Amino acid sequence: MDVIRKKRDGVELSAAEIEWLVASYTRGEVPDYQISAWLMAVVLRGMTRAETAVLTDSMLHSGDVLSFPSIAAKKVDKHSTGGVGDKTSLVLAPVAAAAGVAVPMISGRGLGHTGGTLDKLEAIPGFNVNLSTAEFRRVLETCGCAMIGQTPQIAPADRKLYALRDVTGTVESPYLICASIMSKKLAEGIDALVLDVKTGSGAFMKKEEDAVFLAELMAETGQRMGKQVVALITDMNQPLGNMVGNALEVVECVDILKGGGPADLRELCAELAAWMLYLGNAAASVEDGKRLYKKSISSGEALEKFKQMVELQGGDPRSIDDTSRLPQARHWVKILSEGNGFVSSFQGEQVGTACVVLGGGREKKEDAVDPAVGIVLHKKIGDSVSQNEPLATIYHNDSGRAERAGRLLLESFGITEGSPPTAPALVRRVLGTSGEKPGGAH
Amino acid sequence: MDVIRKKRDGVELSAAEIEWLVASYTRGEVPDYQISAWLMAVVLRGMTRAETAVLTDSMLHSGDVLSFPSIAAKKVDKHSTGGVGDKTSLVLAPVAAAAGVAVPMISGRGLGHTGGTLDKLEAIPGFNVNLSTAEFRRVLETCGCAMIGQTPQIAPADRKLYALRDVTGTVESPYLICASIMSKKLAEGIDALVLDVKTGSGAFMKKEEDAVFLAELMAETGQRMGKQVVALITDMNQPLGNMVGNALEVVECVDILKGGGPADLRELCAELAAWMLYLGNAAASVEDGKRLYKKSISSGEALEKFKQMVELQGGDPRSIDDTSRLPQARHWVKILSEGNGFVSSFQGEQVGTACVVLGGGREKKEDAVDPAVGIVLHKKIGDSVSQNEPLATIYHNDSGRAERAGRLLLESFGITEGSPPTAPALVRRVLGTSGEKPGGAH
Repeated sequence: MDVIRKKRDGVELSAAEIEWLVASYTRGEVPDYQISAWLMAVVLRGMTRAETAVLTDSMLHSGDVLSFPSIAAKKVDKHSTGGVGDKTSLVLAPVAAAAGVAVPMISGRGLGHTGGTLDKLEAIPGFNVNLSTAEFRRVLETCGCAMIGQTPQIAPADRKLYALRDVTGTVESPYLICASIMSKKLAEGIDALVLDVKTGSGAFMKKEEDAVFLAELMAETGQRMGKQVVALITDMNQPLGNMVGNALEVVECVDILKGGGPADLRELCAELAAWMLYLGNAAASVEDGKRLYKKSISSGEALEKFKQMVELQGGDPRSIDDTSRLPQARHWVKILSEGNGFVSSFQGEQVGTACVVLGGGREKKEDAVDPAVGIVLHKKIGDSVSQNEPLATIYHNDSGRAERAGRLLLESFGITEGSPPTAPALVRRVLGTSGEKPGGAH
Repeated sequence: MDVIRKKRDGVELSAAEIEWLVASYTRGEVPDYQISAWLMAVVLRGMTRAETAVLTDSMLHSGDVLSFPSIAAKKVDKHSTGGVGDKTSLVLAPVAAAAGVAVPMISGRGLGHTGGTLDKLEAIPGFNVNLSTAEFRRVLETCGCAMIGQTPQIAPADRKLYALRDVTGTVESPYLICASIMSKKLAEGIDALVLDVKTGSGAFMKKEEDAVFLAELMAETGQRMGKQVVALITDMNQPLGNMVGNALEVVECVDILKGGGPADLRELCAELAAWMLYLGNAAASVEDGKRLYKKSISSGEALEKFKQMVELQGGDPRSIDDTSRLPQARHWVKILSEGNGFVSSFQGEQVGTACVVLGGGREKKEDAVDPAVGIVLHKKIGDSVSQNEPLATIYHNDSGRAERAGRLLLESFGITEGSPPTAPALVRRVLGTSGEKPGGAH
């Protein structure tokens, strides 16, 4: 009661009060109706940086915190706040591992209109994301990277709080989002973290200022907990790459690992990888990290590492050599432009929703995901289009769903006449550094 | 979810949304944890006048709304937001009834440091506050006034919401307080209501601006619902009258009804009664109402009416004729002044708490109340005191409690030297009128 009242009245809570609240709630000693009132007070009153760090720490220590003393390499991970076609994890983990940086990655599933790394990995026949801690450790020791889902032992307080937030209108708070993300990521036993904070029509944070606020909050929280954290604010006004949908996104990542793939995805992978390699002490600078990234791709080392991880986690590595072995939709249909001009904008969230409608994501929590369905974009911002030229191809297993998705997709293209618009810059800002490695100077 | 989110984001809710929320919650279809999040959003975001009126109306109609078509007289009630020694209801109901205004009064119990009308009435041997609606109606028809507690049929939504607010830090919102008070009062089937909104050290609202805000909110809510409402902002920087404690307060009211009693209590009873008589069409003006009040007292009619009601509700009228028949504490102890000077202030809440400590109120909901214990003040603001002169007498049944209460009481007196301070004006403001009877012009 006292803790609720204080937060309601805008009084800063002590570390002991927050720790007590999280521990008591996790043990079931405080009822949901008191926590939901407190959560709403946090949404509307906010939290100080100190409160946010203590909340994160309390949630982190509500469960197991992994550590890998047997692995000498620095442990580095990347986390994205979510977008459409956002598939960099599948490229980054093997690239970093190939360069000697360990990547113990615990990821999530698709949420709302955004895709999830676990759903993408499961498009690979046999791939198992539900490893025990011991198996996770073994894969990490063997190949330097491993990618799994959250186990019940990781941050149980977050699990319980997230379920309550989901039904009480208390999801949308940067403080609560920060504590939720950071408690799970820091439970991985990492030394450093690269955050990819998305902003734009396809992101959760449509406004750049909101993305920057969250990024700063997460960076400072990580730094207060002794971790190196860098946050890149990146554009999500259009899907990343050309493919949206689980198996399709694996295909596009394999293209990247083979030295091809679309330019925007290639660029963002290089940026994020460079930061991971730099923080992981594999590169002397971010520029050096970019060179190392290119080498890792051109030499085929990153692709080999990816295949090794796929095999260690039960997946079929032949589906990487030959992506036609990945799940394939039975039908396709092309979406044609109704006018002439240039693609000038996307309703990004609607592209993600179109993929969910196809069955590539979940409308309800219990829904099964169809790995084969998805969208391939033929036009992105700045491209010229003529009437009846294909804007995108929909891969589907249900013509009713394809029709609904097609309507959403067609609407999501903004086409204007006149001079060609410029595609928005991919990396808007980098936070958490000041010449030094972040955290180093603090 | 949508209703929670809207309120969180400061969007005005529609009447249909509020009605649905209250009805669903009353039926048990919406869980506590969602309502508590919504309540906290209301505390921090507030409500418009329209939302407050719809909330009040929805809570009102969650249960029975009484009506008394058999009674031709106008039905008028008075409600106080609570204070220390605040006992006017026991005087006002019989005064108004004696003048031909019907008073169907549903009251509450002591809350926190404040006393409650029901607890005072139950100090009268045999008095029954738990009448059925039929019995309530019969007493009202017979003698023109009746005083009972909230029945389970009256505003069940308020009962459920209040219990949840009590444990989720969401009591302190003028909008929720207004809806809670007004839904219960309007369920009485009244035509007009006089609100006594207390402000000062012994009230819930220490600041006058908060009292004015609540008063305006309640007046407008009542007017929107077609009722005449007047609100008096009155001083609660010191206890009202000299006696605090259930039986003692009955004694003081009987003193008033017999033409005696302390000046401040006499003055406030006259003011409130005058407004009730005016709104109840028994007086042509408020000034006329004051004259009528005095006549009703001096003629003994009000006292007779009170005795009639006591008897109709099972109480012993002999205890009114001879108040030594009321419960008496076994012991008394005098609190002596430690210095010389003038009483210049009271920590009013602490005087109320001292009475609770004696057993005159409840520390926990389940506690029984001792009707006999209490405090008689010998000095009030403006009075001169000398060292060792008695400031108050404590009537008690437990010397340990008396000692704790004595310390609180002694501390609650502010005594200063110099010139004598003036007692604060009792009626600070009257709201809800503009020459016309309130509500009449709207």
